Amino acid sequence: MVTPRDQRLIESSPNADFAPGWYVVASSKEVGAKPRRFFFNGLPLVTFRDTRGECVALLDRCAHRNAPLSAGQVVGDHIQCLYHGWEFDGAGTCRAVPGLCGEPDHPARRVPSFACRDSQGWVWVYSEPNIEPDGGPYHIPCADEPGYLTIREHLTMPGPLDAVAENALDVPHTAFVHAGLFRKNKDRRPIEVVIRALTDGVEAEFIGERRPEGLAGRLLAPQGGEVFHWDRFLLPCIAQVEYRLGDRSHLVTTAALTPRDATVTDIFATVAVKVPIPNLALRTVFKPVAMRILHQDTEILRRQTEQVQRFGKEEFASTEIDVLGLRIKKLLREAAAGKRATAQEERRIKMLV
Amino acid sequence: MVTPRDQRLIESSPNADFAPGWYVVASSKEVGAKPRRFFFNGLPLVTFRDTRGECVALLDRCAHRNAPLSAGQVVGDHIQCLYHGWEFDGAGTCRAVPGLCGEPDHPARRVPSFACRDSQGWVWVYSEPNIEPDGGPYHIPCADEPGYLTIREHLTMPGPLDAVAENALDVPHTAFVHAGLFRKNKDRRPIEVVIRALTDGVEAEFIGERRPEGLAGRLLAPQGGEVFHWDRFLLPCIAQVEYRLGDRSHLVTTAALTPRDATVTDIFATVAVKVPIPNLALRTVFKPVAMRILHQDTEILRRQTEQVQRFGKEEFASTEIDVLGLRIKKLLREAAAGKRATAQEERRIKMLV
Amino acid sequence: MVTPRDQRLIESSPNADFAPGWYVVASSKEVGAKPRRFFFNGLPLVTFRDTRGECVALLDRCAHRNAPLSAGQVVGDHIQCLYHGWEFDGAGTCRAVPGLCGEPDHPARRVPSFACRDSQGWVWVYSEPNIEPDGGPYHIPCADEPGYLTIREHLTMPGPLDAVAENALDVPHTAFVHAGLFRKNKDRRPIEVVIRALTDGVEAEFIGERRPEGLAGRLLAPQGGEVFHWDRFLLPCIAQVEYRLGDRSHLVTTAALTPRDATVTDIFATVAVKVPIPNLALRTVFKPVAMRILHQDTEILRRQTEQVQRFGKEEFASTEIDVLGLRIKKLLREAAAGKRATAQEERRIKMLV
Repeated sequence: MVTPRDQRLIESSPNADFAPGWYVVASSKEVGAKPRRFFFNGLPLVTFRDTRGECVALLDRCAHRNAPLSAGQVVGDHIQCLYHGWEFDGAGTCRAVPGLCGEPDHPARRVPSFACRDSQGWVWVYSEPNIEPDGGPYHIPCADEPGYLTIREHLTMPGPLDAVAENALDVPHTAFVHAGLFRKNKDRRPIEVVIRALTDGVEAEFIGERRPEGLAGRLLAPQGGEVFHWDRFLLPCIAQVEYRLGDRSHLVTTAALTPRDATVTDIFATVAVKVPIPNLALRTVFKPVAMRILHQDTEILRRQTEQVQRFGKEEFASTEIDVLGLRIKKLLREAAAGKRATAQEERRIKMLV
Repeated sequence: MVTPRDQRLIESSPNADFAPGWYVVASSKEVGAKPRRFFFNGLPLVTFRDTRGECVALLDRCAHRNAPLSAGQVVGDHIQCLYHGWEFDGAGTCRAVPGLCGEPDHPARRVPSFACRDSQGWVWVYSEPNIEPDGGPYHIPCADEPGYLTIREHLTMPGPLDAVAENALDVPHTAFVHAGLFRKNKDRRPIEVVIRALTDGVEAEFIGERRPEGLAGRLLAPQGGEVFHWDRFLLPCIAQVEYRLGDRSHLVTTAALTPRDATVTDIFATVAVKVPIPNLALRTVFKPVAMRILHQDTEILRRQTEQVQRFGKEEFASTEIDVLGLRIKKLLREAAAGKRATAQEERRIKMLV
Repeated sequence: MVTPRDQRLIESSPNADFAPGWYVVASSKEVGAKPRRFFFNGLPLVTFRDTRGECVALLDRCAHRNAPLSAGQVVGDHIQCLYHGWEFDGAGTCRAVPGLCGEPDHPARRVPSFACRDSQGWVWVYSEPNIEPDGGPYHIPCADEPGYLTIREHLTMPGPLDAVAENALDVPHTAFVHAGLFRKNKDRRPIEVVIRALTDGVEAEFIGERRPEGLAGRLLAPQGGEVFHWDRFLLPCIAQVEYRLGDRSHLVTTAALTPRDATVTDIFATVAVKVPIPNLALRTVFKPVAMRILHQDTEILRRQTEQVQRFGKEEFASTEIDVLGLRIKKLLREAAAGKRATAQEERRIKMLV
């Protein structure tokens, strides 16, 4: 049940085009018996584990005098405020008002609570308070499956969710921002891109692509071979890049994006990779290359975000090779407005890669 | 006389619920022949003493090009602007325009002036410009009376006036924020609290209280005995805690609260204490204990204020043991709107202490 | 041609009373083949030289995803964005969209361009995008003429353009802010000031002035003699002080003022001076005196600007000896509104100097 007060809470959040659903807020091992504050679309929430090991999430604001509950402590299954010692259970019900003769529970003394789940190494929180959602969090493909090296990383990017998603799924920038790592701006040849709607999402399939140039390509497919490549966005927050190179190499990078506020996005990335080289060698090379790519993307996103803030709004021109950016914005806008995604026909374009 | 321009000045100040009256702005010894700037509900004012030793207070803004008068110097009974040398007397009248052939005084060249008094070691300023108020500043009880050790301190707290006043007069938080100094959250027993209206104020009397636990209690009443305890708020700005322990110990802490702006409050505290231990011993122990308490209150007020700023407003739930907080807000709101305090019946509640 | 999008751009700039025209944005030698970002009334622009050595200026925002073009590089006559490699020529036309099969040029992919000229050692930019103005930049008198030592300096002042212009052309403040360098606040005698309209400007002529007191006076006119002194403001941005002392000394300081944003103004100053002392001696003494004056003006402008920001608006009272300040504001306001300057009669006043 969303009360009017909770509704106002949501509407005051900074990002207008915020799609309801499950979002990652931390790795499972980061959440324990100590309260942990995080920001979720501008709202401070607090998460902790109760005595059964279940993670819970509440608005990080005591119902009494608005102190942050995360500054208090967990007492049994309750979180205790540091100001007057009020205690709340995982459902946000007030369980103690020290000094009061009488019942602590009262509707005005409840703290909004958010459904919270452990799944595949991450803690997921549902975006709307005080409801029990029908479905569960997104299932990340290939993670921890036999033969797959699985790497999890938490990063923070200076940009709104849609800009970070577009950047993560954008092919043309790689020849410039990551010059020498993926592709070069020379010897280009046309490939075909098929853009098709998925349930609550969109996918671009790249047909006829050569093995990526440079170090990243040699790392992912040392043996060469045919390249299959898909980029996907899935509501509310999943940006996914999948590569198959020949029979033996398979890479799925699934980034769960969480808006910290209107201009900062957390990335909770799961990389599942199967390649015919030893995992130890892969790990050794993968990390520095991935870090260099991420550093380059961080820099350009920071610049872009500063510009949009300075001018007060985005003023974007797009071409047909911006295959996913506008679709991501549309999906988010419709989901935020409570509408189902409008049907989109399959579209095929040529791109010089 | 409040001119329309002065009225706009007051309305532009940041704290909507600002009660008119006398406020402390400095200790008497801090104000001399050198101009001293201070902030009063968001407005910069300047205070200095004239050649007769009288303190005066003006808006700290030259009528000419708005330079801060406090950056200039006192010349005889006038304050001289550092930009073009304009001079103003203690009433804000322009007395010199260097270079001008003709009369310096003109209505457009006046600077708003504020009634200003020395009283009991503090400089008090009346909140409305250009009027001579009927009454004088509040009289602080017991200060400098025979047998009383009197200590004055100026502190700054990160919170609005009403939150600082509630914190200063609040009993339930002491078992948590000051755990071990006053009271503990165990072995509680019910006491009676009588809440009664005073002229332009409100008082809570605590009946049946044990001597405070912990160090503060042992300090204030080494001999034990019956405890009398009152907490009071008096418009516009006085928060007062009075303890009588047996016949021989008496403590009155009077905090004059001045809003520096909407989220920072200056506390000008006068502690008058009579106890059967030597003043030197009292001074030695009192300061570190008081500083520890104040540091703990500063931390919680800072957290509370940050939360309210982040959410854009207070969202407070109260219980009957929040005996003064809502009454303080109501008194301030009514005084700010120019209304007399509405009659409040005496109320008795039980509190576990 | 100003498109509706360009018009919105201009209207979103921070300074409402911004007069159209030519402004200096850098010294000619600061602009080369490397892109250089600067701020012009709140807008980031980028300037660079093409292969023919001509300087060009564009809005510093890629039409595609709004990255700053200044973070990219100059490739031939184009500037290339660092995000996706889009290229723009000096007119703002899109010349390359790497990866796109088809024509890069499209109206939505144009970047606003600003007319740009080298003149007298400075790079001047016209304030309105996408038009070729009829006239050229202001001609600075005496600069680089035979017999004149010419000094150019770029400074930054903490104040809006009109406050910086008034300060630069204001006589009465010199006895206070620059006490001991120009004039003193004693032994004053009346002189006559004639204030007359110029085409798109205003001039104050000071008649009967003694040689300035103090070090600055001795420096400018070691031989004494009759003093002629004019202060001028010329739309949109020229503040000029001219002194003739006897037959042999002549000083014209021409400050081209460029609003960086609503509260910071760049000063591009050209000092042309002819005095009967060796240029080397002049240079040696001039710089420290000028720097001291400028430091003093910086301090007072910073204080004034902070005050106006704090109160949210200017609340200025003026007298007849504020000979140019109100006229400068009126000229800027009328020019910003697209009106011709209203006719002003010649006015004569007395001032004690």
